[in-house]
Amino acid sequence: MSVVTPKGFRAAGIAAGIKANGNPDLALVVNDGPEQVAAGVFTRNKVKAAPVLWSQQVLTTGRLRAVVLNSGGANACTGPEGFQTAHATAEKAAEMLGCGAIEVAVCSTGLIGAQLPRDTVLAGVETAAGELAATPDAGLAAATAIMTTDTMAKQAAHTDEAGWSVGGLTKGAGMIAPSMATMLSVLTTDAVVDAPVLEQALRAAVRVSFDRLDVDGSMSTNDTVVALASGASGVTPDPAALTAALTAVCKDLAQQMQADAEGVTKRIAVQVTGAATEDDAVTVARTVARDSLVKTAMFGSDANWGRIAAAVGYSDAAVDPDTLDVTINGVLLCRGGVAAGGRTDADLSGKEIVIEIGLGLGDGAAEILTTDLSHAYVEENSAYPS
Amino acid sequence: MSVVTPKGFRAAGIAAGIKANGNPDLALVVNDGPEQVAAGVFTRNKVKAAPVLWSQQVLTTGRLRAVVLNSGGANACTGPEGFQTAHATAEKAAEMLGCGAIEVAVCSTGLIGAQLPRDTVLAGVETAAGELAATPDAGLAAATAIMTTDTMAKQAAHTDEAGWSVGGLTKGAGMIAPSMATMLSVLTTDAVVDAPVLEQALRAAVRVSFDRLDVDGSMSTNDTVVALASGASGVTPDPAALTAALTAVCKDLAQQMQADAEGVTKRIAVQVTGAATEDDAVTVARTVARDSLVKTAMFGSDANWGRIAAAVGYSDAAVDPDTLDVTINGVLLCRGGVAAGGRTDADLSGKEIVIEIGLGLGDGAAEILTTDLSHAYVEENSAYPS
Repeated sequence: MSVVTPKGFRAAGIAAGIKANGNPDLALVVNDGPEQVAAGVFTRNKVKAAPVLWSQQVLTTGRLRAVVLNSGGANACTGPEGFQTAHATAEKAAEMLGCGAIEVAVCSTGLIGAQLPRDTVLAGVETAAGELAATPDAGLAAATAIMTTDTMAKQAAHTDEAGWSVGGLTKGAGMIAPSMATMLSVLTTDAVVDAPVLEQALRAAVRVSFDRLDVDGSMSTNDTVVALASGASGVTPDPAALTAALTAVCKDLAQQMQADAEGVTKRIAVQVTGAATEDDAVTVARTVARDSLVKTAMFGSDANWGRIAAAVGYSDAAVDPDTLDVTINGVLLCRGGVAAGGRTDADLSGKEIVIEIGLGLGDGAAEILTTDLSHAYVEENSAYPS
Repeated sequence: MSVVTPKGFRAAGIAAGIKANGNPDLALVVNDGPEQVAAGVFTRNKVKAAPVLWSQQVLTTGRLRAVVLNSGGANACTGPEGFQTAHATAEKAAEMLGCGAIEVAVCSTGLIGAQLPRDTVLAGVETAAGELAATPDAGLAAATAIMTTDTMAKQAAHTDEAGWSVGGLTKGAGMIAPSMATMLSVLTTDAVVDAPVLEQALRAAVRVSFDRLDVDGSMSTNDTVVALASGASGVTPDPAALTAALTAVCKDLAQQMQADAEGVTKRIAVQVTGAATEDDAVTVARTVARDSLVKTAMFGSDANWGRIAAAVGYSDAAVDPDTLDVTINGVLLCRGGVAAGGRTDADLSGKEIVIEIGLGLGDGAAEILTTDLSHAYVEENSAYPS
């Protein structure tokens, strides 16, 4: 159930001393092959962290031996000095593994605008390289070392009956939106796959999992998802099967992020059907999922469908108020744009809320996962810099 | 300092019984002429309240005798029955004033999805018509009757030395964004002006005032700004002078809305300069003003410029990280995309925060007013349905 579930991988997670509190803060995931195929998906933020710039560059080869990840500092808005730190980190890992720096990706998360303590990071890479193992404990240590405001390590795996598997780890707990806090993820597979197929499968998986967490266009400076393929199973799966397995793991990890979101008291699924297109369905679901008035109403267990209708109406999608239906937790509250029942009929007292929005225009459908906007969210994000 | 400051106007505000708590909930603003020129700006939400549909229709004539406004119910998502209520409200006012229903606009604010008590509203219009007066008390009563979560009535006026003036009232306190709660405003002037010039001046004024409150594209189902011109001063001002006066009044009202926003502990001005275009400047300022992590940091008096840089980066505008400067309350914290000083140097302990963002790309500039995201905001919007 970790990045070392697939054959050909080792991992480590240690406390390098980047975090002042001494918590684990540096992880290393290594692909021992026989193949070192890799693909990545990065933030579309125009302000990119140094490790993102570095990793985008090295991933143009479609080949990676290892990924170094650190928490305790984003290494973003750090200029040439920050880029040199990312480069030096890759060089140190390469030295330890006997490969080139161009075969090592780097991911960082934490406060923006501060330089990482380079020597501390480099010493940490050396220590981590000495602790690499293919054990579940090593996988867990790696997942633990990248946590920031996360309250639990997040791992998942999926094994195909044909004898190959996919594993993964992730971090991210900021209101679950990639906009709101950095999400980093490393996915591993022992399937035999070439780089273009792996990249296509990864993009397809991310599009319906991590990208369906609240917001897409709004991303942090550091968001990174890297996939590594070792080929160690000797099995070449059908691309569709690989995509399905990657998607299953990414969805599992995304749900863990939703459940662990900062200050969450409700897990909300916004399901849109009947949109003119799938893109429109995503747009409507995202707009509702982001609306502060909807999110605070959900925190208050108030089935305030009018706020949902208003958000649907200002979304940048085709909407006809006369064919708008809104159902919350199974109770139809708005039919054809007009109240259909008492809003007290819907029971929102539990932790799970399903908002179904029918647009009555076509076949487009999409689901976005989000959370409520709670006192704890405000507290966590105002009292502690991150 | 009210809608009756300009000559030719009377107003009233009463408790019609729409609100269960007996607070004032119905206002009437009447233009006694000699001219009845009018213009309006409405929400771009695709889910439009019945009074918006009605008022858009009657304003196509460029002529209005009166505006009826109510709080206690938005009359949105109420179908044909709701539209009939808006129509009947206009007819009742027309009957009392001896004009046609097509000369009466209607504005509503409150909970979406519930029918207004039609008989209560109609009786209220009758009562209000009997209390119309051109006194400051009457202007205040009208401004008071449209309050929802507002804690104070909002009025403004501007008198030109040439002998004409502009007055106005507004309501809206939902995180100050038109997206977040309905804003209604009535502006009056005794200038002599024809409808196309009034409309152009109104649009120009709204664009740099109400539309610069946090969000533009995201609007409620009910947002309405109506301008009425009586011509009673006998003075025909230059269109630029009229635009300037309307803008001054709208900015004054917008600042009152910002100061009274739900749960506000900080008043934040996001000032962008150096953008490639003015549109880009607005886009960047809005994106920063909307970002939950920026807003919670401001609540925590934390000069977390990294969150601002990240929001700038994901905005849909031309941005070069290498020429990005961020200054908070006069302290330059980020120069050329890199930390320029300690973030503890900026003092954010007061109620006023000015965020200056220099993009270094061109001459585009814009300011957006917003507020912090506080515990009180969450409380107000989760514990009380609206």
